[in-house]
Formats: sequence, structure tokens, C-alpha cells
Amino acid sequence: MSYTGGYKVLDSKQLDKEISGKINEIIDDIIKIRRTIHQNPELGYEEYQTSELVARKLESYGIKVARGVGGTGVVGLLAGAKPGKTLLLRADMDALPIQEETGLPFASKVPGKMHACGHDIHTSVLLGAARVLSLYRDRIYGNIKFMFQPAEECSPTGGAKKMIEDGVLENPKVDFAVALHVWPDLQVGQLGFKTGPVSARSDRIFLRVLGKSGHASAPHQGVDAIVASAQVISSLQTIISRRINPRDSVVITIGRIQGGDRYNVICDKVEMEGTVRIMSPGYDDKIPELIRQAGEGAAASVGARFEMDYINGYPMTINDEALTKKVEDLIKKSLGEGAIKEIPLDAGGEDFSFVSQKVPSVYIKLGSSLPVSSEDVGFIPLHNSRVIFDEGCISVGIKTFGIAALGLLSEQEEKHGE
Amino acid sequence: MSYTGGYKVLDSKQLDKEISGKINEIIDDIIKIRRTIHQNPELGYEEYQTSELVARKLESYGIKVARGVGGTGVVGLLAGAKPGKTLLLRADMDALPIQEETGLPFASKVPGKMHACGHDIHTSVLLGAARVLSLYRDRIYGNIKFMFQPAEECSPTGGAKKMIEDGVLENPKVDFAVALHVWPDLQVGQLGFKTGPVSARSDRIFLRVLGKSGHASAPHQGVDAIVASAQVISSLQTIISRRINPRDSVVITIGRIQGGDRYNVICDKVEMEGTVRIMSPGYDDKIPELIRQAGEGAAASVGARFEMDYINGYPMTINDEALTKKVEDLIKKSLGEGAIKEIPLDAGGEDFSFVSQKVPSVYIKLGSSLPVSSEDVGFIPLHNSRVIFDEGCISVGIKTFGIAALGLLSEQEEKHGE
Amino acid sequence: MSYTGGYKVLDSKQLDKEISGKINEIIDDIIKIRRTIHQNPELGYEEYQTSELVARKLESYGIKVARGVGGTGVVGLLAGAKPGKTLLLRADMDALPIQEETGLPFASKVPGKMHACGHDIHTSVLLGAARVLSLYRDRIYGNIKFMFQPAEECSPTGGAKKMIEDGVLENPKVDFAVALHVWPDLQVGQLGFKTGPVSARSDRIFLRVLGKSGHASAPHQGVDAIVASAQVISSLQTIISRRINPRDSVVITIGRIQGGDRYNVICDKVEMEGTVRIMSPGYDDKIPELIRQAGEGAAASVGARFEMDYINGYPMTINDEALTKKVEDLIKKSLGEGAIKEIPLDAGGEDFSFVSQKVPSVYIKLGSSLPVSSEDVGFIPLHNSRVIFDEGCISVGIKTFGIAALGLLSEQEEKHGE
Amino acid sequence: MSYTGGYKVLDSKQLDKEISGKINEIIDDIIKIRRTIHQNPELGYEEYQTSELVARKLESYGIKVARGVGGTGVVGLLAGAKPGKTLLLRADMDALPIQEETGLPFASKVPGKMHACGHDIHTSVLLGAARVLSLYRDRIYGNIKFMFQPAEECSPTGGAKKMIEDGVLENPKVDFAVALHVWPDLQVGQLGFKTGPVSARSDRIFLRVLGKSGHASAPHQGVDAIVASAQVISSLQTIISRRINPRDSVVITIGRIQGGDRYNVICDKVEMEGTVRIMSPGYDDKIPELIRQAGEGAAASVGARFEMDYINGYPMTINDEALTKKVEDLIKKSLGEGAIKEIPLDAGGEDFSFVSQKVPSVYIKLGSSLPVSSEDVGFIPLHNSRVIFDEGCISVGIKTFGIAALGLLSEQEEKHGE
Repeated sequence: MSYTGGYKVLDSKQLDKEISGKINEIIDDIIKIRRTIHQNPELGYEEYQTSELVARKLESYGIKVARGVGGTGVVGLLAGAKPGKTLLLRADMDALPIQEETGLPFASKVPGKMHACGHDIHTSVLLGAARVLSLYRDRIYGNIKFMFQPAEECSPTGGAKKMIEDGVLENPKVDFAVALHVWPDLQVGQLGFKTGPVSARSDRIFLRVLGKSGHASAPHQGVDAIVASAQVISSLQTIISRRINPRDSVVITIGRIQGGDRYNVICDKVEMEGTVRIMSPGYDDKIPELIRQAGEGAAASVGARFEMDYINGYPMTINDEALTKKVEDLIKKSLGEGAIKEIPLDAGGEDFSFVSQKVPSVYIKLGSSLPVSSEDVGFIPLHNSRVIFDEGCISVGIKTFGIAALGLLSEQEEKHGE
Repeated sequence: MSYTGGYKVLDSKQLDKEISGKINEIIDDIIKIRRTIHQNPELGYEEYQTSELVARKLESYGIKVARGVGGTGVVGLLAGAKPGKTLLLRADMDALPIQEETGLPFASKVPGKMHACGHDIHTSVLLGAARVLSLYRDRIYGNIKFMFQPAEECSPTGGAKKMIEDGVLENPKVDFAVALHVWPDLQVGQLGFKTGPVSARSDRIFLRVLGKSGHASAPHQGVDAIVASAQVISSLQTIISRRINPRDSVVITIGRIQGGDRYNVICDKVEMEGTVRIMSPGYDDKIPELIRQAGEGAAASVGARFEMDYINGYPMTINDEALTKKVEDLIKKSLGEGAIKEIPLDAGGEDFSFVSQKVPSVYIKLGSSLPVSSEDVGFIPLHNSRVIFDEGCISVGIKTFGIAALGLLSEQEEKHGE
Repeated sequence: MSYTGGYKVLDSKQLDKEISGKINEIIDDIIKIRRTIHQNPELGYEEYQTSELVARKLESYGIKVARGVGGTGVVGLLAGAKPGKTLLLRADMDALPIQEETGLPFASKVPGKMHACGHDIHTSVLLGAARVLSLYRDRIYGNIKFMFQPAEECSPTGGAKKMIEDGVLENPKVDFAVALHVWPDLQVGQLGFKTGPVSARSDRIFLRVLGKSGHASAPHQGVDAIVASAQVISSLQTIISRRINPRDSVVITIGRIQGGDRYNVICDKVEMEGTVRIMSPGYDDKIPELIRQAGEGAAASVGARFEMDYINGYPMTINDEALTKKVEDLIKKSLGEGAIKEIPLDAGGEDFSFVSQKVPSVYIKLGSSLPVSSEDVGFIPLHNSRVIFDEGCISVGIKTFGIAALGLLSEQEEKHGE
Repeated sequence: MSYTGGYKVLDSKQLDKEISGKINEIIDDIIKIRRTIHQNPELGYEEYQTSELVARKLESYGIKVARGVGGTGVVGLLAGAKPGKTLLLRADMDALPIQEETGLPFASKVPGKMHACGHDIHTSVLLGAARVLSLYRDRIYGNIKFMFQPAEECSPTGGAKKMIEDGVLENPKVDFAVALHVWPDLQVGQLGFKTGPVSARSDRIFLRVLGKSGHASAPHQGVDAIVASAQVISSLQTIISRRINPRDSVVITIGRIQGGDRYNVICDKVEMEGTVRIMSPGYDDKIPELIRQAGEGAAASVGARFEMDYINGYPMTINDEALTKKVEDLIKKSLGEGAIKEIPLDAGGEDFSFVSQKVPSVYIKLGSSLPVSSEDVGFIPLHNSRVIFDEGCISVGIKTFGIAALGLLSEQEEKHGE
């Protein structure tokens, strides 16, 4: 399933110049689209207006469109002039339940909803790429699928999974996939690359420790769920310290604990809520088992019971090594060495991971900050009500998709791959 | 401070018969008073109607009354015909913030307030005893003080302490004291005795473990207060298991724990609330110190901080051995051996303890249940919205106070004690 | 099974004087016997010379003797002139594997063995009592059994249990029993009494936590028994803090821990050894179960296994309330109020407990220290190589047995009991 | 300090063939040397015969020798015909205190000592390389230092550190360094490469928890060091689970615990011994501080004290990225792509780390196993009494050193680097 093609260098200088020109022609339109989406944020699986806007734009670029894929998802198919492989380019469209506080002139008009994760940028970048690439149909060996997915933020039932179930990777069968995500850690013009795991698996846990109520002064007649939960929490620490390969990365965090109503009654139930982040392969099944073992044993040791709901989140997004290096090379040639930044694994979840499990994929971070000094504004992270993405990143994103697509589906590539 | 008098046996048979007769004459009145109080419960320090009722009744018995002692407390003074010691008899008057669900015809008329701890019984019993004893002025060597206190349920600032501060034990100086408390564990006609500690010290603790917030996936950038609190709770267990004399009795219960808001954020504050019950002497200062040591050390071990508010509750009520045995003897002669029951130390707090710290005292449990089979109703404890005290206990209580007072203040006693 | 006889006061003054006279006549002989035994200590179940000496002495007093009861035990039977109940008086004969360092002229001649627990005193006291009582045969209603047991120090298979299995309590059936034990906490002339539990149950535990070895740097390939045992020890603390009635007394102490051979290898076995002291009834079966629960749960929580050997020690010695009060009364009349001391429960084990489980018994502490100031010698406890018991305690012990026996088997007693 | 030189491809094919020929000529001699060393193992700082053998052989190859560097270390200096950089090639000479059980005809003749870590191979490989390279003096731009160090196994005072203190990296100043280590995980012909950290920092810890002794039945009079150490061990787990960046690798293992002498005495001292493995930069000072914090806090929480001796072991060996890639490239060209294996970080310590801290270095694993099926013999690790290194690895090692040295000190390299 890993990407194995060789490739020949395009006449990149000329193409590059040409594409930059095309982007300049359309960028104002694309930014207008972006602002429209930004002002009208829609939550996961409710992207009715956004997806309709996307579909109509794709159609206006002469691209064949399928609506309602995996709920509110949209798929565009651009068939190249010559036969070849099929590349999927992906964007996500959903907003977050956050009240925007950016003060932007085109800030969200919907109370309590905001594009605070930049999916408006992703969608407009991919529309821009679709429009540019539609002009290069003749040079394309194979097909490009434009995947606009709903509900990336709706773990664990994200839109990518639903679209895969609905066939987005078939007819024609997708051979490889590329996605972008805005990244405030990087500046506009920079692109972050990493091979292997690039986003963590992020699961959610609900733990309950059940004892038996009683008078505070007669602990022997009850079972103290608070004391039992202390044992449980201690045992959970030993999973990380003793049961995981020290070279691997797993995090178990209990973020919330709540138990007991009255100070003078033996507590009969403690509820804990937390998250598991898996950043190394091989632990998906093991961690729930180890948590259950730690919890059941520790609770039983003081006479209590342990219950767990383990909600599988998005799996790790894995960047295929060969494909990633190839795309990195293509970008380096176009944007220069300085544009390429090595990035660490991101502990957040990403449902493009479902795609990366099926086909060789590369998930690239798109720098979205201006090089201001941190004293001016300070760094504002994703999902923050005041986060602002510099729109200069849009043309960089379009170019990245464009260069990658043309590079991966070029004549030489195709021949060499035979 | 311990009671040391010897005494001579009263002509108990005759006196007993006589007192029983007097009680029969007044019992309907007293029950009427009890029901009035029951229907009109007042919370601690708000016993305006109740105390006024008490004061007027005492006055109608020819007893000298002081109002407004320690807030809404009332003190009656019955001077005997001959000189002697001063005995204090005590009752409490406050109700609880509980919605009554007994279905009694004379149930509380005040929503959300109920005499669920039997203080209405205590008050009317003591009024009955005052009325009966007022008839025996000639036989009394010394004085009887009737102490009707407010706010027994208002730990740590209970009414007994306030009345002591207001001088209830002076002018004339009190030599010994007796109090009763209804007790559903015993049947009507039974009285529970114990020497030494008879009610526990009951303190309240508020613990806070303070860490530092951060992303759930980057625990090293925060300090996890939930993990720290697990260490704290484990350390608290070692106080009981290792730092207390195994022959002594101390309980530390955390009844409530609450920490963190979000499952995916490192928790920066855990709050715990609990109670300490001390049932052996010598631990009043040691336990707060040991809790602080356990908490600070355990929190520091994971980089967190520990804070504690330790609220001193009522101290232990100590029954003076000699006085208790004497009163027990008096009662045994009047009510028979079968009436006397040995009782265990009560883990609940009782503010008569403040009196017992100043003068030799005895605190007696007054059986208040009918001998019904447990299958019919089941045992209903104090402070329960459905608890019913059988009114048959009222005449037993009056007689107990009467016999004790006349026995402790008799001629022989007085002479012997000189 | 509790002692219920009433009794009439003996003409104690005269009897007392008489007995004191008899003791004076024999005390030199008895002290000689004591020193012989002291010089020739024999360990448990090897009391060949001691028991033969005892048997011959008893025979020389005209007492019927059975040898070899429960191993090296000896039983003497003194039948009173008139019918009545059967009283058992008990002494133990075994020494300890300790090298004596007292410097006494009659110190142990056997290297590494010493009568450091005073069983030589017990044996000679009981021989003295047998000799005196044999002179009172005419006044005795019933029988006296003299039980000289082996191996009191050999928990859990002590000599008392074996002698019971061999029938010491039958033919004639024993009705009640008395034993003495030297006690350095009390002075010569003082006797320590307590009703109810007077010595603790003392069990022994061997715990093993089993993991899996591996490289110190690859903990995930092993199971760390040291980390698991930390969880086990923490869980054990919660038994005392949460599973025991706070009014009861139980101790669990791990005195020794040992695990792992090398600093850089994951430890696969931790062995712990400890003791359980039970000082309240009702926990004999519960504690092993709770330890198993704590250990198995805690070990399992980190993937390890838990094994336990729980060695039942001697049960609690229970002093029958009525019998104890009666003997206390008899002694008080003979030796005066000042001779009676209240004693706390002793956390050490005592195999007279097996007798106390079968018949109403009283176990009395015999003061054995001189009233020297603690600055001179300091207090030296039992089982210490330098402990010296003042021989003045021997006549006190003889008198105690004598007075108790004659009082319990007197004419009035017998009649009253019918 | 990182290697930055560029280089030009040698006429590798011809040179390769030539070197292989030279190795063939000398290999029998070298294997004889290896077997001599293997039969006469000497422990750290006692390599008298070995180092003398090494020195004489080097002299016989016409190489200038310094004896007694850093104890029993030997340094050879081969000056190239032309000026250039100075490369250090390193081998270690010491054996282990293990009784050999290989059954080899040339097994150790010294009881209890064995070359179980392959240092005999390393020494003979480097002698072979010195002999071959001495034939290429004309082609060498710069110098080659041959470092034969004592006591690699003597952490923390290993021989490399001593030789550096004695100036091995000066006169002429060393610019880069290469070392090899036999590796049973790889087959003969394979070479293991990794950039960045290639061996862990391996420290040693001695922890003591100090309490206060006392009777097992009176825990409150002592301080239980076993209970305290359980809290300490639990707290140590939280360092790994909460205080370390989850993307980094640190291991804390307590391998041995020992406390208490008697089952029925409160333990007053627990001693623990363990190891810390640091496999990520930035934790050298932090870990001792966190262990101290965890230990002191946890011990204090139960009234005990904590003491620590933290013995710094060898630091991490860091393979310079540029140098490693260059040497890997040189080897790949000579031995083929299949010879290069990626290896994980080794959790064991290595004192070549001290060299790698001073000059850009590369530490290469030399495959030493035959491709036998695991069913035949099973995998036998280093430091095992039965480990056998296949001598086929010797010529591979010589060639690796030779190719690397000639490549790094070639004309083009030199020019390019100017």
C-alpha cells in the first residue's frame, strides 16, 4: 500500500511561473469564496450551504460533481486527457461551536459558530486548486478527485470515514491522496512535512469506579469509591511507565474527576473522563486492554468495581514515506528549500487518517501565520476564538496542490511507473 | 472535674410511684406542646417561637427564666428549699432543613424544615421534667438549671458553646449536667448508657490539590492535579493504618472529589471535602498535622501544591464515669435492670460535649422506637425525612430527668458529699 | 460458656494468713526448683528434664500425674474431698533460643537457650500452688487440674492446643481455668486484670508478587514485580483505613521486603513477610480474605500475580467477664485493692487462648519488677537476653493460684451454683 | 561540532577490490591475534598483556605508538603523506567477569573472565585496519589515530573518558571519529546505522527510605519505611507518565528492593537500587531532580526520609548526521545497499559517547551472527556466557574502517573541505 513510483523532473521552472500566473488571476475570487464560507459557518453534517457552494463552483469549473457523499460531502472528478493513476485531494468543510472573537470584518454571522480550525481556508484552497488544475487537463495522466468532506471535527464518526464507506476511494480507484491543514506554528510560505505518523490517534475514555454508600464514620459498611479511584489513577500511571515501549509515545490523561455528593457520606461512584493519545503503531488494541486491567484490578483491590467506555477516535494519520519524499521534492523545486519545514507529530486527531489507512497519503501543514514578533499578538492556537489565518496562505496552498497533482500525474511518472 | 460524691438510696419505691402519678397528670399537656413544636420547626438560632413557648411554660411552672442566652437560648432556674449543688439538665430546640415525609397528622407545617433529630421531644421532655420537679422543691438540696439551647445542629458554632460563653454554667456554678437524646436503635423504655467517650469529635476538611493546566497530550508542560490527588488520597490512608494507635479510633473520609473541566485538558485543581471523626483522646491536634504532612508530601512528590482548611467540629462528649454509674444506678432502681442498655460510641457529633468538657456530665440515649419487626417498616435513622419517634418515650424521659435530679440533689447525697 | 456462679465470701482473713504461712514454709524449695529450671532451659517440645522434674514433684505432693500429654506436657489431678466443679490451673515450661546475658549466678548453662519469657517462674509457681493446695484437699469441692504445657512459644502449633487435643479438658471435664504470666510492666505484688480480649490474635503472612524478568531498559517486555508490590502495599493500607470498623483494632504490618537481584534487571519476584494482629472479635476469617483481595487486585492491575501463605497464629485470649470479676474480687480481699491493676490488651500472642476458647478462663499478669527507678536499669522487656524477674513474684503467684482455687471451689460456691 | 565536509566519489570499485585483496592476505594473522586475546581476557584497567600485544603489532606495521594513555590505553598515529584532517578509529580491549561456556576450542583460559562483549573482535579488527591502512599512507590526506581504550565496561569511569583527559583527541587534534561494535542482532555482512542518539545514557541510582523501628503491633510508635517506599515507587511512576515529554524516551527501573530484617518489627530502612536510561536529549539534569522530588515528597507524606545517590553513567552516544550519512554512503558503495541496516537506539551504555560529545562521530553496529534458524541455537545476547561471534565479521569490520578512513581522508574530500 506504500507509494513506490519513480518520477522524472518536470520542466518545473516554466510550469511554476505559469501556475503562479493562473493563481494570481483567480485569487481574488477564491478569497471572496473563503470569506463567504467564513461568515456562514456550519457545524459537522450540517454543511448544507457550504457543500452546495462547493458543488456549484466545481461544476462551473467543468468538473463532474457527486453531491451527498457521506452525508453532506461533495466529490469532484477531473479526468485527465490521458490514462493514468487517480490522485485524491481533500479538504474539510465543517466549523466549530465557538463564538468568534477575531473582530474581522468578515467574521462569523452565526452566533456560537466559527471556522476556528481553518476549514474555510482548506475548502477555498481546494476549490482554487480545482479551478487551476481544470486548466491543465491535457497534461494530466489519470484523474484527480476533489474530496470535500463534512464533519472532520465530529470524532469518532468523522466525515472522511463516511465518505469512504460511500465509495469516495472507488470508481475510479484512488491510488494516492494529499491533504493540507493550516498551521499557525508555521509562517505563510512554509510547508510542514513529516514521514510516518503525523497525527496521533486520539481516543476518549469514560471511567467509573463503583463502590457502596454509607456513613462517613462507618467506612467498613460501604466501599469507598474515592479511595478506589486513587488506586485506579495510580495504576494507570504504570501503564505508561512500565507497559509501553519507552521508545514509543502514548499518553493517558484523566482530565476530569467527579465523585460524591456530601462530605460526610462514603462516596459510591467516581466518574472520570479523559483522553488517550497514541503516537506509535501497535497500541490501538493494547491500551484499552491495559486500562481495563489496571482499573479492574485496582478497584477490586479495595472491593470496588470498574467500568469503562472506550471511544475510539481517529486513528493515526500515516504519511507514506516514498510519496511524502516525492511531494516534498516537487515542492522544494517549486518553492525552494526554505519552504520545507520538518514538523513533529501532532497529538491532535485528524480524520484524513482513514484515507491514509487505505491509500498512500501525505498530509501537509500549511503555514498560516505572519512573521510578527510574539510580543505583539502572541501565538494564538487552532480552536481559539481569536485565531486568524493570514490569507496569504491560500495561494501557497493552491500552488502546493497544483504542483503536487501535476507532478504525481505527469507523463514521465506514468511511464516510469508502468 | 470528675464526679466523686457518694450517695444514699432514696426511698425509691414510693417516690417512683409518686412521680409516675405526676407524670400521668401532665403527659397530655406535654404531648400537646411537643406536637406544637413539631408542627412549627425552626432552624438553629432562629428558634424564636420555640424559645418563647419554653420560657412562658417555665414561668408558668414558677421557675425563674432568663431569655436570650447564647442567642435564642433559654435558662430556667429552680432553687431547691435547701442549699446544695447545682445540676444542669439540658435540651436542644432547633430543627433541620429537611422536608418532612412522615405523614403524621401533626407533621411540620413549614416547608423544608423538620424536627428529624427529635429536638422537639427533648424540649418537651425537659419542660415536663421542669414541671414535675417544680413540685419537689422541698426535697431538693441545691438548684436545678434547665438549659434549652439553640442550634445544636450548627457545627462548629453550636448553641451550647454560645450559652457557656454567655454564662449558663455560672451563677450559680453548675456542678454536674445531664442530657438525653432520642435513639431509634433502642425501644421505648430503654435507656442507653456508656462511660467515657460517648460521641465522636467530628471535624470537617476541605482539601485542594493545585497543579498547572496544559494540553492533555503534553503532560510535561503542566502539573496533573488529578494524579497528585490520587497520591494524596493514598497517603491519607496511611495515617489510619500506620500513624494511629491501633487500639484508638479515628476515621478520615473524603466524601466528595471534584477536579477538572474538560476531558482533554490537564487538570489544575482538585477539590476534596470530607470529615474526620475522632473517637479516642489525644488526636485533636495530631490529625490536622498528619493530614497536612500527607497532603503536602504527596502533592509535592508530583510537583503539585496542597492546601487545607480544617474546620474544628464539636469535641468528644465524655461521660464522667462516677456520675454515669450513679445515674445508671438510680435509673436501674426505678425502671429495672432491663431498661439499661450498653451503647457504643456514637460517631456523630453532639455539642453537649462543650458542657461535658467543663463539668462532670452524663449523656443518655432515650429509646424511641416501638418493638416492631424490621420487616414492617424497617429501621429509620435520625435525620431521615420519614423518621417517627414514639411519644411513649416522653414520659420515660421525664422520669429519667426527674429520678436523676432528685437522686443527685437528695439530702443524703448532700450530706455525704460535704 | 461464660462463668455464671455466684459465691459467698470465705473467711478470707484467717485463710489468707494460713496460706501465707504455708507458702513461707515451701518458698525456698520452690525457688530452688525455679533456679534449676532456669539453669537448664529446654526449647518447645523438648522439655524432657523439665517435665520429668514437674511430674516427680507433683507425685511427691500426692497428686496423680499423667505424663506425655500433648508431647512433653504433664497433667496433675488433685481430687477434692467433696464433689464439685473442676478448675484448671496452667503453666508453660518451654524456654527461648536466646543467649542469656543477665549475669545471674544461676544463669542458663545451655548456650543459646534462656528462660527469657519467665516460663520457669510459671512452672515453679504452679508447683508451689499444687503443693499448698494439696494441703487443702478437705476444703475443696471438686477437682483441680494442674496443666504444665510444652511449647507455648511455638506458634502456631503451641502446646496448649496439643494438650487439648490429647484431652486435658476432659475426665473430669474442666469448668474453668486460670493462668498467670510474669509481667515486667508491673511491680512485684501487683496483678494485672482485664475482661474480654486480653491478648491479640497474632498471625503471620508471607506474600509474593510475581512478575516477569527482562531488561531494565525494556520494561514493557517484563512485568515489574517491584512496582506491583508498591501497589499491593498501598492497597493493604486501605484494609485498615476503610474495611475495618474504626472502633475495632487490627494491625497489618509488612516487616520485611526483598525483591530482585540486579539493579538493571526487571524484578520478577518480590517477597514480603509480615504479621497480622487482631484485637477485636469477628475478623479471623475476614482479614485473610481482604488481604487476598487487596493483593490479587493490586498485582493484577499491573499484570503481576499475587500469592499468599497465611499462617494462623494463636487466637485472642478472652477473659470471661464474670469469672475475671470473681477472681479479681477474691484477690482484692486477700492482697488488697492496691494489688489490682487494669491492663491493656497485649498485642502479643498467647496459646492459653485455646483453653479460653473452650472454657471460661482468666489470664492474669503477675508483676515481676522491683520498684527501681527507670534511670537505674531501664525497663527490660520480655524476650530480652538481659531480662530478670524478681523472685518475690513467686510467692505472690502461688498465693494468687491458691486463693483463686479455694475461692472458686469452696462449699458456698458449690451450693450457690447448684 | 557537526561534520560538514562534502566529498567526491572515490574510484571505489578498484579500491574496493584492492582492499579486499589486502584483507585476505592478513586475515589469518588477525584471527590468530583475536583468538590469543580471547583466550587471555583481562578486565578493565588490567589490560596489560592485551595492550602490549596491540602496541607491538602497531609498531610492527610502522605506526607510531603511545602506551599508557588513560591507564592501559594505547594510541597509534598513522600520518598520511599529505596534510589533512585527523580521523580517530577506536576499539576497546577489556573483558567481562563472566565464566565462559561457549565450548570454543580457543575459549577463555582465565577462570571467571570472558570476552563476552566482543572487545577481542573490536581490537583485532582495528589492528587489521591499521595494518591495511598503513599500506595506503600515500593516499591519505591527514592522519589516522588508532585508539585502543581500556575499561569500556567500567561505568561510570570508562577508559574513553580517561584517554580524552590524557589527550587522545589532541596533537594532532581529532576532527572526527568512527567506532564499531559487534551486534548479534545483525548477520555477518550487515552494518547497523542510525543518526542522532545511538546509545542511551545509563545512570545508576541508589535510593534509601528511612523510617523508625518499632513493634509490628504499634505502628504509630515507628515510621514504616516499607509503606513509605511503596509511596515512593508509585511517585516514581508519575515521572515517566506525567513529567516527561511523551515523545521522548526515559526509563526509570528499580531492579532491587530490600528492607527490614524481621516480620514482626516495623522496618526502618528500605534500600532500592536501579537504573535510569535516558534516550532523548535534555533530561540529564532534570531526571535526578524529579526523582529527588518524588522520593522526598512521598517519603515525607508518611513521615519518612529519602536519600539518593545518583551515579552518572555514560552519556548518550550521538551519531553526527552528516558524518553518519557520508560513512553510510561510502559503505553502501563498497558493500552494497543490502549491507546497510537501520538500527534502533540501544538502551545500553557505551563510553565512546565521551568521544561523540567532543567531535563528530559515528558508531556502527557490526553484524556478528550467522543466519542460522532461531530453532537451532536461539538468539544469544551480548554479555552471555555462551555468546559466539562469527569471525566472518572481522574482515567486514576491517573493510568498514578501511573504506571509511580512505573515503574521509581522500584528496577530493580534503580539497572540497577547504
